[in-house]
Amino acid sequence: MAEARFDVLGVGNAIVDVLTHADDAFLDAHGLAKGSMTLIDEDTVGRLYDAMGPAIECSGGSAANTIAGLASLGGSGAFIGKVRDDEMGAFFRHDIRALGITFETLLADDSAPTARCLILVTPDAQRTMQTYLGACVELGPDDIDADLVAAAEVCYLEGYLWDRPLAKEAFLKAARIAHQAGRRVSLSLSDPFCVDRHRADFLNLVEDHVDVLFANEEEVLSLYQVETFDAALQWVRGHCEVAALTRGEKGSVIVSGDEVHVVDAEPVERIVDTTGAGDAYAAGFLHGLGGGRDLAACARIGGVGAAEVIAHMGARPETSLRDEVARRLS
Amino acid sequence: MAEARFDVLGVGNAIVDVLTHADDAFLDAHGLAKGSMTLIDEDTVGRLYDAMGPAIECSGGSAANTIAGLASLGGSGAFIGKVRDDEMGAFFRHDIRALGITFETLLADDSAPTARCLILVTPDAQRTMQTYLGACVELGPDDIDADLVAAAEVCYLEGYLWDRPLAKEAFLKAARIAHQAGRRVSLSLSDPFCVDRHRADFLNLVEDHVDVLFANEEEVLSLYQVETFDAALQWVRGHCEVAALTRGEKGSVIVSGDEVHVVDAEPVERIVDTTGAGDAYAAGFLHGLGGGRDLAACARIGGVGAAEVIAHMGARPETSLRDEVARRLS
Repeated sequence: MAEARFDVLGVGNAIVDVLTHADDAFLDAHGLAKGSMTLIDEDTVGRLYDAMGPAIECSGGSAANTIAGLASLGGSGAFIGKVRDDEMGAFFRHDIRALGITFETLLADDSAPTARCLILVTPDAQRTMQTYLGACVELGPDDIDADLVAAAEVCYLEGYLWDRPLAKEAFLKAARIAHQAGRRVSLSLSDPFCVDRHRADFLNLVEDHVDVLFANEEEVLSLYQVETFDAALQWVRGHCEVAALTRGEKGSVIVSGDEVHVVDAEPVERIVDTTGAGDAYAAGFLHGLGGGRDLAACARIGGVGAAEVIAHMGARPETSLRDEVARRLS
Repeated sequence: MAEARFDVLGVGNAIVDVLTHADDAFLDAHGLAKGSMTLIDEDTVGRLYDAMGPAIECSGGSAANTIAGLASLGGSGAFIGKVRDDEMGAFFRHDIRALGITFETLLADDSAPTARCLILVTPDAQRTMQTYLGACVELGPDDIDADLVAAAEVCYLEGYLWDRPLAKEAFLKAARIAHQAGRRVSLSLSDPFCVDRHRADFLNLVEDHVDVLFANEEEVLSLYQVETFDAALQWVRGHCEVAALTRGEKGSVIVSGDEVHVVDAEPVERIVDTTGAGDAYAAGFLHGLGGGRDLAACARIGGVGAAEVIAHMGARPETSLRDEVARRLS
């Protein structure tokens, strides 16, 4: 097998985040389920944007955030995702390439603008996401560059892709090529509602295609429709090589065959915005794994990534994660 | 005189900030003078953007930031500035209106896009600004709505307007109308290089038209071409009703006739990005002044505004300044 040119290739929705503060009354008034990700259409995004407070814009997208985190750790990454040739698309492209990440997906040529996600951050630092997929719906199997997939140690896929038929095909094509090339496939379950929408497919995926699974507690409970974390853990250990299960302030639990590691969360002075916590965790974990670290060390590096991004508004690191790891773990 | 509908009307450049971290070597390599604001053309903004790191976008503009800060304090504000009907313009408009600020300036109809300012934040938390004025160059005297000016207690003008001939006419028209209506005129000197470019005009303005002046130490030294802060202070006290002179971590000094107040800076745990410190200070000071507070109290409220915005990336408050004032000063 050829040496990998990239540590991780991410495939996901290419999204610009529009972040604002909101209170619980605002969520209630607009019927938004706190902590979830909901797909909305162009009219709804316009109405909600008009109603919400002043915002900041920054590049987002779950898998894209993970690749950005990986780059911040010093890893080499590539990304496949769809934007248009508009101002938001230019921001997204700039931000990911500025990190040294290979991003060559053809621009969308339809009329839909680059995707945006309205993120409402409540005083408890929880984030509620309303996503207009825009140009992302054009992502399909033709965008999966087989050479790129084969050139990455790990092919990292976000569960959100499963929400659109074309993107789902792209997802399966990428996973197939990765395995044919002897690479690992990693999946993030993304969101409990997303798991709910696609449970049967995700169960098959986890059993048959996924080597490294990322999920938070809610997502893995939803996947196996069980009541307790321990029950979910028993299921998942038989299904994939490694499962990294995150539990917010309780840290994470890693299972791999007979191994189980319980790792504390990294301390954070003040949690400002939990957007991207899981994405940054996956970045750290995968970076550790690629560097041959043991699973507990991978989980700690993941925890450092999560701790950095939840201390400020926005889903991507503001400071070098490599420096953060050196500061916290050495 | 009719009761004012607004506490403050701001007139300034309507700009979207594009913020990134950079090191001193980057500034050197691109010949950028740390701490300054430089006007650049469209080609240069493109080249610099391509070279710089990942960024976040948020609404900016000096006077606009001040009006945003005022709104965050519970004050009523209006703003005059020029954007285009593009995505950046929509962000700017949304962010200012979402704060309850009246903003009705006609959209620019030329081909230039909404202005953007590339802001490079160095590890010492200093910001270096490269501004492409875009649609702002269309701001002119026709945009100055006489009723709006007459309806505001204070007409607040940014020195940056002086860089473009049309905007300068708009500036003078607004100041004239304000005084005819018995209102106060306030000026922020904006930037030492800006003062350098327009020293003679600014000296005339300060002597003849400005009631409340905001300047930092460097700017006021540049204005009077003196070596010491005390010398500048002696000049300025004879020229305008109130001068609020900011000195970074040393706090601020307020002079008004025979009164002098020296007020400490508010403590900040970690200074992240000084962008907008002066704008937020002016917001607090003007809010205090409008509320009939004494000058020392005005300076302290200004200090709270500055302390909030320098603790995070971006020039506008992330949390309610009204709450911050209650927490810190009561």
